[in-house]
Amino acid sequence: MQLDSLFTYDSVALNAAGDGVVIVDQTLLPGEERFLTLRDEHEVYEAIAKLRVRGAPAIGVAAAYGLYVSLFNKNRAVSLSCSEFIAEFYRIKEYIGSARPTAVNLPAALERMTRCLESHKDGSVQEILSALRREAEAVKADDMAMCRSIAGYGASLIDRPGMGILTHCNAGHYAVSRYGTALAPVYLAHSRGMAPRVYADETRPLMQGARITAFELSKAGVDATLQCDNMAASLMASGRIDLVFTGCDRVAANGDTANKIGTSALAILASYYHIPFYILGPTSSIDPSAASGKDIPVEQREAEEVTELYFRHRIAPDGVKVYNPAFDITPASLISGIVTEKGIFRYPYDFSDLQLKDLTV
Amino acid sequence: MQLDSLFTYDSVALNAAGDGVVIVDQTLLPGEERFLTLRDEHEVYEAIAKLRVRGAPAIGVAAAYGLYVSLFNKNRAVSLSCSEFIAEFYRIKEYIGSARPTAVNLPAALERMTRCLESHKDGSVQEILSALRREAEAVKADDMAMCRSIAGYGASLIDRPGMGILTHCNAGHYAVSRYGTALAPVYLAHSRGMAPRVYADETRPLMQGARITAFELSKAGVDATLQCDNMAASLMASGRIDLVFTGCDRVAANGDTANKIGTSALAILASYYHIPFYILGPTSSIDPSAASGKDIPVEQREAEEVTELYFRHRIAPDGVKVYNPAFDITPASLISGIVTEKGIFRYPYDFSDLQLKDLTV
Repeated sequence: MQLDSLFTYDSVALNAAGDGVVIVDQTLLPGEERFLTLRDEHEVYEAIAKLRVRGAPAIGVAAAYGLYVSLFNKNRAVSLSCSEFIAEFYRIKEYIGSARPTAVNLPAALERMTRCLESHKDGSVQEILSALRREAEAVKADDMAMCRSIAGYGASLIDRPGMGILTHCNAGHYAVSRYGTALAPVYLAHSRGMAPRVYADETRPLMQGARITAFELSKAGVDATLQCDNMAASLMASGRIDLVFTGCDRVAANGDTANKIGTSALAILASYYHIPFYILGPTSSIDPSAASGKDIPVEQREAEEVTELYFRHRIAPDGVKVYNPAFDITPASLISGIVTEKGIFRYPYDFSDLQLKDLTV
Repeated sequence: MQLDSLFTYDSVALNAAGDGVVIVDQTLLPGEERFLTLRDEHEVYEAIAKLRVRGAPAIGVAAAYGLYVSLFNKNRAVSLSCSEFIAEFYRIKEYIGSARPTAVNLPAALERMTRCLESHKDGSVQEILSALRREAEAVKADDMAMCRSIAGYGASLIDRPGMGILTHCNAGHYAVSRYGTALAPVYLAHSRGMAPRVYADETRPLMQGARITAFELSKAGVDATLQCDNMAASLMASGRIDLVFTGCDRVAANGDTANKIGTSALAILASYYHIPFYILGPTSSIDPSAASGKDIPVEQREAEEVTELYFRHRIAPDGVKVYNPAFDITPASLISGIVTEKGIFRYPYDFSDLQLKDLTV
């Protein structure tokens, strides 16, 4: 089976007319696969801010394409001079860049587009637009190559048929352009007939695991089981889990890793049960400006995410205090390996050979 | 402040007419405090099976009262002969006893009622009924005395003002007749002005922590914060947690403890963060017939508890497999102490001095 045959569409794509970014509205999954075509910066901002497109790499691709199509459509409506075009570029870049605070991919993708603009700004508006379109397509192509490479390194860890892999949140197809990060090796192993069995944490409070991970795995024919987050220890004790694979939002220079709330608990439980625990993500998630997890800010989100089930049905008493961090920090010492597109890193972590640039400044 | 002044009603009570068991429908909390009066074995069975009354000790009290009122009302409707009465007793006992599989209190309370029947079966139906009513009231009185004693022993562990106590599920007021097991020491410490701060796990899938624990603590004026189950490690890492207190459904002879799914994870996390982890419950939860946790059967519950948020809004794809055990087993070695009405036991556990009878045979 070909890896690519598992996916019927990309999570983020430029439409055939080249004037819109096509995404699936992830807030409606799994009930409905509704495709949205985003044509200006307001639609792009709203889709990112409301998590209609989510997952750090997917956001980066959507932002790059979004910046391009916003400028393309603006110039088609009202022909812009070169200086007007450049002014519009910076205004729209600033606006789209403010849609979400945490992940590094959003500013990184916009910075790539900016470097492209700067190196073509002596050309005509048409020439700049062509260069920006190629750059946005390169952002996506790089994302796909990165995922494909992570798939290969990660699949080397799935070395027996029928292994049980526990995952948390969604670091799969819908978090990137196509293959995923944490789930990419699962898809590759599945395409090779290794029949991995995936146990997906539902991932409170926003249920990305139940809504998205369980959905995309089932759709691709991967054996998927859903459980509540608090059932991971029971699964591990039962012998069903051979590996834990999760994504990452940001990795500090020492390997401490910020990822969806609940990840650090899985690392501690896996250590107790002697189960390898892997973080999978691009080297662009490594932030050399953060020496350790203490330097990674953790977003606290609104109480209603916890007190109202999926914002619909209130289940907690009025006025109760709520603790609702979006992320937690997994200590590097509990991470068996960090699987990137450039290979698998092992504790104690040293990323200095990567000569990473500080993208967050 | 008096401990009893914190509670405005008992969770399980015989009504004034002596022909009904009054409970609060716990499935409707915190939105509504609806009182139900159960008058026959079908209503009692339904209330226990559907978790309208839940918590092992509360189920035991409801079963004892329920057996009594079912027989009382049957005899009032159709006057029974002594042999008919005894046959009805065993039929109803068997039926109510099958409402839920795990907790030891349900069969234990029914066995107490049976011993009472056996020692009065030479009397008239009226005499047997009177004896059964006294026995059911004794089951409740013993439950309250047990909780009050656990409160005292457990409160000795809350030895500084403002301690942070993490709890899971509901082992409080609504799980017993009045004070709770895991929460009884919290209420006692609160009544003594020690201002404990409680962090309540919401406890997926049925949300007993969000719906019941957060509600009863807030109602009693205790400082309560709610979090998703997967946030416990983050709370512990932040230094907010000084103690973990949970209840228990069944304790094996070696101290391995079955409790609400997610408990064993807390024990592992607490061990990692060097935070004392205590189980609190009556010695009647100790099952000498189970040598270790391997001998405790774990109930698997229906998939819809996980896939449909609080049975209302579907959040997972159709047909996905679900892992949904009601309980997990916490290894005895991770339990700092088991707080009972007879004192605090420490690892390695030896309950032989208690001369417990095997109540489950």
